[in-house]
Amino acid sequence: MRVAELSRRTGVSVASIKYYLREGLLPPGERTSPNQAAYGEAHVRRLRLVRALIDVGGLSVAGTRDVLAAVDADEVALHSVLGATQDALVGGAVLTDDDATERATKVLDDLVARRGWHVHESNPGRRAAVEILATSERLGTEVLVNLLDTYAETLEALARREVDAVVSRGRREDVVESAVLGTVLGAGLISALRTMAHESASAGLAGQG
Amino acid sequence: MRVAELSRRTGVSVASIKYYLREGLLPPGERTSPNQAAYGEAHVRRLRLVRALIDVGGLSVAGTRDVLAAVDADEVALHSVLGATQDALVGGAVLTDDDATERATKVLDDLVARRGWHVHESNPGRRAAVEILATSERLGTEVLVNLLDTYAETLEALARREVDAVVSRGRREDVVESAVLGTVLGAGLISALRTMAHESASAGLAGQG
Repeated sequence: MRVAELSRRTGVSVASIKYYLREGLLPPGERTSPNQAAYGEAHVRRLRLVRALIDVGGLSVAGTRDVLAAVDADEVALHSVLGATQDALVGGAVLTDDDATERATKVLDDLVARRGWHVHESNPGRRAAVEILATSERLGTEVLVNLLDTYAETLEALARREVDAVVSRGRREDVVESAVLGTVLGAGLISALRTMAHESASAGLAGQG
Repeated sequence: MRVAELSRRTGVSVASIKYYLREGLLPPGERTSPNQAAYGEAHVRRLRLVRALIDVGGLSVAGTRDVLAAVDADEVALHSVLGATQDALVGGAVLTDDDATERATKVLDDLVARRGWHVHESNPGRRAAVEILATSERLGTEVLVNLLDTYAETLEALARREVDAVVSRGRREDVVESAVLGTVLGAGLISALRTMAHESASAGLAGQG
């Protein structure tokens, strides 16, 4: 199909498609003349994946490119694909060098040891969690620290279910794509359902002024 | 204290402080001369809250202003503060008008009915969840839909614990600030711990190519 039909099929503008082609997020079509190229179903699918990562996941173009490179690599372990996706999703928190950060690091290390988690020092979630716990301390709020074990227990159980669901997909390319989509779209779905569950749980308190 | 000390105490640059003053995120200090103002502990605290909302929560300046207005209003119910925070956090997803969106809306409405949730039509999480479920369908991935009830059950239990922890703070101003921080920082903490839990849960699969 021509670029105009690719645009119509996916709802992505021709200008955006050309931008993604230039940025390497979308492989080039098959040249049919010096000024025209033909695109196939693989382009439709890839374009939808790109939009999901950017629009729903909030990933940058560079982050999306890293994730796609990991998805496309034949030899890369699932582990590394997840790592690239998580890096792009959680981003690089900048840690303040103060006592609050030091204490938060200890709190998180203790949690990891207590739960027996296998998590590398370089996991992007670690840095993000430390920054959030340190921010909480600086703001003098204890709500998150008090709930830390509840969060960890809940997310550990959920992660096991999520990984099982993804791995049961069987074929490597399906597993990889499901892992990426599950990580990115799952984060959005969790945030959305949490927002709904909060309203429902606090509905009885609506009268409180 | 002078603006320079406020900057030193909070690690926020003088230029940023002046920007927040202009944008109304920080109340003006007490004028001590035509060119100088004095700031107090309330400014330190508010500035830290602003940075948490912007840096950790990823809120826009406008979103932060909405949340602070709700925090500061005497008469506003806790419910509305949560609403403003959730609006700023989840943002306004733009729904595509297609069959996938229609089916996703039905899937979500059924879920809400099945779980007996009290959630207004206007809850920003609804729209975000519908868009994510519709995106999943367009991408042909079933992982999220298969896990939908698991997510809902998990987040319902978690939301109950979170609301309890916040309400137990007692004084209204503490409840409100805890609710805002819990919503925003909690979302970041969940994302970070989920990233760690995924690595731990998939650690045994590292060899899978």
